[in-house]
Order: sequence, then structure tokens, then C-alpha cells
Amino acid sequence: MEVFEKLAPLSDRVQQELEKAVWESFPVTLREPILYFLKTPGKKIRPLFNLLSCQAVGGRIEDALPAAVGLELFHDFTLIHDDIMDQDELRRGSLTIHKKWDVGTAILAGDALIGMAYRSMQQARTDRLEEVLHLFSEGVIKVCEGQALDKEFEGRPQISEAEYLEMISKKTAWLFRISCQIGAIIGGGTEAQIDAMAEFGYQLGIGFQIQDDLLDFVADESKLGKHVGSDLQRDKKTYVTLKYRELLEKRSPAGKTYPKNIYQFASLNELKAALYELGLVEETQQVVEGYISRALQALETVQPLNPENHLYQITQFLRQRQY
Amino acid sequence: MEVFEKLAPLSDRVQQELEKAVWESFPVTLREPILYFLKTPGKKIRPLFNLLSCQAVGGRIEDALPAAVGLELFHDFTLIHDDIMDQDELRRGSLTIHKKWDVGTAILAGDALIGMAYRSMQQARTDRLEEVLHLFSEGVIKVCEGQALDKEFEGRPQISEAEYLEMISKKTAWLFRISCQIGAIIGGGTEAQIDAMAEFGYQLGIGFQIQDDLLDFVADESKLGKHVGSDLQRDKKTYVTLKYRELLEKRSPAGKTYPKNIYQFASLNELKAALYELGLVEETQQVVEGYISRALQALETVQPLNPENHLYQITQFLRQRQY
Repeated sequence: MEVFEKLAPLSDRVQQELEKAVWESFPVTLREPILYFLKTPGKKIRPLFNLLSCQAVGGRIEDALPAAVGLELFHDFTLIHDDIMDQDELRRGSLTIHKKWDVGTAILAGDALIGMAYRSMQQARTDRLEEVLHLFSEGVIKVCEGQALDKEFEGRPQISEAEYLEMISKKTAWLFRISCQIGAIIGGGTEAQIDAMAEFGYQLGIGFQIQDDLLDFVADESKLGKHVGSDLQRDKKTYVTLKYRELLEKRSPAGKTYPKNIYQFASLNELKAALYELGLVEETQQVVEGYISRALQALETVQPLNPENHLYQITQFLRQRQY
Repeated sequence: MEVFEKLAPLSDRVQQELEKAVWESFPVTLREPILYFLKTPGKKIRPLFNLLSCQAVGGRIEDALPAAVGLELFHDFTLIHDDIMDQDELRRGSLTIHKKWDVGTAILAGDALIGMAYRSMQQARTDRLEEVLHLFSEGVIKVCEGQALDKEFEGRPQISEAEYLEMISKKTAWLFRISCQIGAIIGGGTEAQIDAMAEFGYQLGIGFQIQDDLLDFVADESKLGKHVGSDLQRDKKTYVTLKYRELLEKRSPAGKTYPKNIYQFASLNELKAALYELGLVEETQQVVEGYISRALQALETVQPLNPENHLYQITQFLRQRQY
């Protein structure tokens, strides 16, 4: 977490602006749940990516700040609505809004956040604002597409790897991508730099989501801030569940029988043990590594990968996280 | 409906563009509910207001078309999410999305619509796009505020007239207002014209909502496209419920006793009869008339109120509607 401590002044600044985006005039039924959610601790990865990408191409962080805030407000909107759809009870270690209040309150808090996100984004200081807003809207739609695919796949026995990758690229990687891309645009980067930063965000986003899905099975619950195995209960399609089924279809591992579906294990501990035994944890970690390497290759064309490169440091942190 | 028949080429154009805003690439779980909703018949009042306001100040309708589509997409988003929160089963004579599919699908369809709305709005042809987008975002947030107030008031025994007006001005009138205002901006109107069109939309919006709330009690259900009295079941605060309580507190009408709360009537027919007896239908209609007159006064400063003035004709239609 060292890099996040170093970057605390920056994320604190984002936090202040996030809270300022909540108008005093808001009805209490909107104001309270939004502030409650904005104050739950988050690493602010997307706004940091945005600000650091702006800086990486020689721009001023101040110019990108409204965009960074807009990206986080948008991200929060997706979390609040996803939690309703997934019926999750915990987020960042706190009760979800629909659980603490009700579904209507959570829908509305999310809706207001997206208006607030755009309002902030519209204040970014750049002469390429139209392009920035175009990218942002495209991103908003893609995230919804990704979430729709995620839901759709829950109802299907098996999906292909290509389908899984399409889903997470829209649901997760696209927002990482535009966070970096928009930062580089506001920072006045060259087209090559902007493309490289977009690629960095995208590859890292894919790796991040695959890893996230893996951690949902194997993480330490006390650190995860939500229930381990919550994806499992819904037969959510993840890289691990996909590979598990593929593996059992190809060959029956010697000496042991495994249930056909990953959600049929008697306990999460048995499942965990099986995933290690079958080499699926290691295989998944290697796939994650591949995406992270590609992300760093792109980043390196813009900024050397040294200890002063905070984007590199954050990537290293994500690579090693256990929860 | 004569004016809407005359304007059919315009609303058909809007309809085509609405459906084009749904990307081919959308997952079927997003595409189907959105297209289903977009195809339910609506009068397209907000986009028509937008286009006609643009024309009223001498602008070209074509320039405002993306904004008109954006306003309708946004309006549809609010309807879909409101219907979830209000647990309504019918909208425009068809099953609501959360009823025909499920709550998750309806949340997501609404979310995608708001991204689509912005994307369309961003394509408006004007050199004042930043201002247009600023007004739009402010509008998005205000609508959420209004909806939050609406929910908040359901849990309270009585609200003041000022509170009711604040709620409907945010929930309904503000979108009418910016529809006209944005149209006049894109049309290149003078500041006085833009302000007048904004005022027209705002006053009409207030009148429209008060009338809408009244029609929820007294309309012919077969024409309304939703269940009559649906507001009542939730003790929704409307102009009529507000005035009913005020009236009974001031004086006990001679010869008859009425329940303390409007939702305590044994049947909708008894309630209807009482509202007529107490003069509340007439009183409410007069209040609506007041707002409509103020709207027309503002409109008249931009366009003479003659049969060629379509905004005037729509206003006359709304004034006389029975459902």
C-alpha cells in the first residue's frame, strides 16, 4: 500500500471534490445515502489512473481533476446499481445502500451520481472536451452492456472464453481504459501517448477483473470487504469457473472425482482446495500476469518503469494483492 | 390530437432516431427491453417542445434533433426507474419493464438509456454545446432530486404547498423547461427569447403535473394507459390530496362527513364524487389554468398565439386533455 500512502494527498483531493459534488440542496433522502457511499474507503484507482496519466504526458493534474472526480462518481454509480442486481449486502466493508435503506433509494442515489459524474466531467479543462465527453458516454453505455452480459451469462450453463472476455472488457476494462485515455487527452499527450495510455488501462483492466474473480474464491474474507464466494452462489461466470468446466470436459483428473459445476462443492474450502489441486489458481494467475505485462509494455512507451512511476507502482500493488 | 397528427412527420423522425440510438452490438437482454419501451406509443411532448422551440426562434429543426432525441431518452430513463420505485405495472398501456422482465433488467435498461441520452445530446449542432450539456446535467440531477422528494413525502402525513411545488418543479417542470430552453439555444435565439421559452416550458410543466395528478383520480382508466388511483394506494402527495386535507382542517363541510385522509375512501368512485362535491376538481383545474396562462404569456413574446403556432396548439391540447 506504500504507493497509495504516497499518493494520499492526491486521493484526499479527489475525496474532497467528490463530497463537494453533493449539493447542499439535495433532499436528505438523496444526500445521506450518497455521502454515506462516497465516504466508504476506496482506493480511488480510476481517478488516480486518470490524474497520473495526465501527468505522465506532461499535463497538469489540476486540469484533469474534474474528470477524475467524474470517473469515480460514475464508478460508484455502477457499484450501487450492481449491488442491487447482485443482491450483495456488503461493499467496501459497509452495508450496501439497498440493504441499509431500500432498493428505491439505491436506484435513485445511483441515478443522481451519474448526473453528477457528467457535470463534473464537463468541467474538465481541455480544448478537446467534446472528444472527452464522447469517450465518456461510450464508456457509460459499454459498462451497461457488460453488466447486461454478466447477468445474461448467469442464466447459461457455459460460456466461451471469448464471451467472458467481451463481458469483462466492457464491464471493467473499458472504464480503466478511458480513465487513462481521458487523462492523457487532457494532459495534451500525442496521439501515440494517448493510445498507449488507453492500452495500458485496458490490459490492466482485463487482468484486474480476472484476478478479482479469482480472489472472490480464494481471498481472506476479513480483508475483502465482502463475502468470499458471493459470485459462486449466483453461478456467476468467471475465468475460474470457465476453465474448471473446460478442464473437466477435456480430462477427468486421476484419482479424484469433482462435481460437474463449481457451485456444487459442499463448501468453499473444498472448492478452494480443488482449485489449487487442479492448478487453476496458478493458471489464472499466469493469465493475469500476461495482461499486466502487456499493460506495462504500453506504459513503458510513455514513462520509464522506475520507482518514481506511480502508475507502475500501482500496477505492482494490484499484481500482488491478496484481497 | 389534431396538432399531433400535423406534427406526425416530426415525431416519426424522433422515433426513428430513438430506435437508431440502440446499438446493434447491445446484448439482447439490454436491446429487447429498451426497444420494447421505445416502441410504446408516447406523444413525444418533450422532443417536440425542443424542436418547436428551436424553430420558434428561427433555428433549423435538424440542428436540434439530437438534443430532442436525448431529452426523450432521458425521459424514458426516468419513467423506467420511477415505475420500479412506484411498483407500477402499466406504462403507456403496456407492462412495465420490471414487470415483463425483472427489476435488474429495468435498472440496467434505464442506466443504458441515460448514457444514450447524453451521447445523443452531445451531437447537437450548436456552438453553445457546453452550455447545453451543463443545463442537461443540471436537469438530470434536479429530476433525481424531485423523485427523491416525491418518495420522501409519501412517508409524511402532510406536506406544504411550497414543498409540493418544489417537488413537481424538479420532478417534472424542469425537464419541460430545459427542453424548450435548449431548443431555443440551439436555434440561436436571443437571451430574451431563450428565457421566455424556458419560462413557457417551466410554467406549462407545473400545470401539466398538477393536472396529471388530478387525472390520476378522475380519468377514464381505459384511456389513461395505467390504473386510475394508483397514486392513491401509496398516499402519494398531490395537489388534490394537499388541498383536501387543508380544506377539512379549515372547515367541516356541512351535512356530510369525510374521511380524514383521501386514501381512506371506501372506493375510488366515492372519492371522485367527494372531490367534485367539495369543489376540489374545479379549484385544481383553475390552478392548472393559471400556470397555463403564464406559460402562454411567455410564449406569446416569441411567437403569436395563432393556429400556426404548434407550441400553442399542443398547450391547448394539454389544457383540454381528459386522460
